[in-house]
Amino acid sequence: MLIDPGHHLAQMRAQAPLVQNITNYVAMNVMANAMLAAGASPAMVHAEEEAPEFAAIAAALTINIGTLSAPWVRSMVGAAGAARDAGRPWVLDPVAVSATGFRRAVGAQLLALGPSVIRGNASEIMALSGQAAAGKGADAADEVTAAEAAATRLAQDHGLVVAVTGPVDFVTDGTRAVRIANGDPMMPRITALGCSLTGIVGAFIAGQPAFEGSVAALAYFGLAGEIAGRSAAGPASFQTAFIDALYTLGPDDLNAGARITAA
Amino acid sequence: MLIDPGHHLAQMRAQAPLVQNITNYVAMNVMANAMLAAGASPAMVHAEEEAPEFAAIAAALTINIGTLSAPWVRSMVGAAGAARDAGRPWVLDPVAVSATGFRRAVGAQLLALGPSVIRGNASEIMALSGQAAAGKGADAADEVTAAEAAATRLAQDHGLVVAVTGPVDFVTDGTRAVRIANGDPMMPRITALGCSLTGIVGAFIAGQPAFEGSVAALAYFGLAGEIAGRSAAGPASFQTAFIDALYTLGPDDLNAGARITAA
Amino acid sequence: MLIDPGHHLAQMRAQAPLVQNITNYVAMNVMANAMLAAGASPAMVHAEEEAPEFAAIAAALTINIGTLSAPWVRSMVGAAGAARDAGRPWVLDPVAVSATGFRRAVGAQLLALGPSVIRGNASEIMALSGQAAAGKGADAADEVTAAEAAATRLAQDHGLVVAVTGPVDFVTDGTRAVRIANGDPMMPRITALGCSLTGIVGAFIAGQPAFEGSVAALAYFGLAGEIAGRSAAGPASFQTAFIDALYTLGPDDLNAGARITAA
Repeated sequence: MLIDPGHHLAQMRAQAPLVQNITNYVAMNVMANAMLAAGASPAMVHAEEEAPEFAAIAAALTINIGTLSAPWVRSMVGAAGAARDAGRPWVLDPVAVSATGFRRAVGAQLLALGPSVIRGNASEIMALSGQAAAGKGADAADEVTAAEAAATRLAQDHGLVVAVTGPVDFVTDGTRAVRIANGDPMMPRITALGCSLTGIVGAFIAGQPAFEGSVAALAYFGLAGEIAGRSAAGPASFQTAFIDALYTLGPDDLNAGARITAA
Repeated sequence: MLIDPGHHLAQMRAQAPLVQNITNYVAMNVMANAMLAAGASPAMVHAEEEAPEFAAIAAALTINIGTLSAPWVRSMVGAAGAARDAGRPWVLDPVAVSATGFRRAVGAQLLALGPSVIRGNASEIMALSGQAAAGKGADAADEVTAAEAAATRLAQDHGLVVAVTGPVDFVTDGTRAVRIANGDPMMPRITALGCSLTGIVGAFIAGQPAFEGSVAALAYFGLAGEIAGRSAAGPASFQTAFIDALYTLGPDDLNAGARITAA
Repeated sequence: MLIDPGHHLAQMRAQAPLVQNITNYVAMNVMANAMLAAGASPAMVHAEEEAPEFAAIAAALTINIGTLSAPWVRSMVGAAGAARDAGRPWVLDPVAVSATGFRRAVGAQLLALGPSVIRGNASEIMALSGQAAAGKGADAADEVTAAEAAATRLAQDHGLVVAVTGPVDFVTDGTRAVRIANGDPMMPRITALGCSLTGIVGAFIAGQPAFEGSVAALAYFGLAGEIAGRSAAGPASFQTAFIDALYTLGPDDLNAGARITAA
């Protein structure tokens, strides 16, 4: 395998990167806990009065449009611009971008600010690339495979990495592409796990290459899901076991369990 | 029994209704997880720029006034109006409506927009009906029985269903009334379970009758609490077991365990 | 020992004080659950339209600057003033106060409104006292001992209690000082536990002396952490066991396990 996910996990933990997250209200707590369990240092800083200033301090930034409002859009735009100017990577999570006109406009505005990685489900990636999407809330209504062409075009047109997540994930930088088969069917039954993954991706690409870091983050997250699935009695005990697994999973476990193949 | 709660649970799961929730910040995560565990498709969409547009897409809407602000009130009013115009049911959760003048005014304004169901504790229902209430935060300071007359009058005056929840719940549409004796004493020790129940009620009345759906939702929720109570060592392990029980509880279990009696 | 923490826990539970919390979005749910598990009655009321009115009803107020915005600052200032005017104690939690200019300004503004207790980590207390601090997000980058002089000066200059929390806590009212050695190394790996502790301090100083109440709250919180650490497999199972321990821990357990020494 060309990608060594355990190496990127070890690097991330050694740096414990400070990652700023402008995310939705539903996700804030579990996303912060997932990032802390993984070994990163999350900061939920979204006020327009300080978000751009903080973006220049943080090692990476993630922006999630799950619960939008006009002041938050100003924060997102300001922080994304500040991250870009400071040469810091940032990740866009276009939650339910096709659901309303407000979301479509904000999605396009943020895409123009040059994210390093876009992490979304198939519907969201298709919508962002201009293709029609099924779009019922944030569910992965489309199959990942149907979004591969859209992801590749998006990656090529904007010079970034696109990570389409679902039962089998697809990650491309427009030239290279891999599939990641880790995960558990219970994961869509817990809210904000996709949002949390976006934070983990942010931690893995802080000071590390965006393509390799994203692939490693997805394999790590999915493998923690597999471990949780072995003991869970339902979605809440799954979430507990999942966060615990993010904490206990080591680089060697990750290299042994990652299922990454060239696409 | 005239009401078949298992039937309404099975119907809800078959539809997996998209339910829009404008709820408070404390409740968003656990409410979304409770609804996902139950089998619904929750969407936390509250920005005034998109909440009314989304309300016309969703199968049902719930509005909870737990953490109010002026922009959110505009969203609530816009979304409630849009749901009404689109013929979609919506549920009002008047959290601590008597606590401040701001809440009293908003409660009255929302009541005038024709909710399908009001779900609250005894204090809140009495306050909304114009009766004096004890009102210490969101605690069920009054007994449910003391609120039955207020609930019936509210239901008759406004042509809606009122669900008063507490140790024994009371549900009426102004003509019919039942009591539901399911539940566990630990439930008030976990924040936002009442708010989560409001979301479950929203899921059960999407495409189903408001009275029967509400009764079924309350029995289902209370029975999950009873199951959780058997294994919990405290409020946090209770919450985990409770969400798991919402996921594992089936229609037959519900019909076997529901304790619904005519009032 | 001059301080009897079990007595203060029993008093708090007997009163079940209504504590208003203006806290950050990340902390709201876990803070409310921690306070409910402890036996208090939390209310998350932060809207500028009602926060000051509510502060005059509540038995204590806590203010946490974790996720600031201009409207929230107005709520905080209004509520702190109303609490002071009504003779109610209030606790300031200056999260990451040194991170941005916006936070520094708000921290100074709130300090001038006379909090009863300030609860922060070493970096935050040093920053608030005017000393340079390492300041990477909300982590306890400085050692508690390095902040003791800053804490004592802050307590003396403003006539209040300062609680510096870390591996070993330090609490002073400017004259007396103690150290509390309870806690578990896993606690910094869970988001918002420090914020939750601020709420618990608020509950313990409602109708009780600020110095003794704060010390008792910190010992209680740390001891619950020790109990959780015995069974946890990672940070999420730790959090569950921790909230359960806040619920099950009694006054006698607290007096047996508290490790409070004169500083």
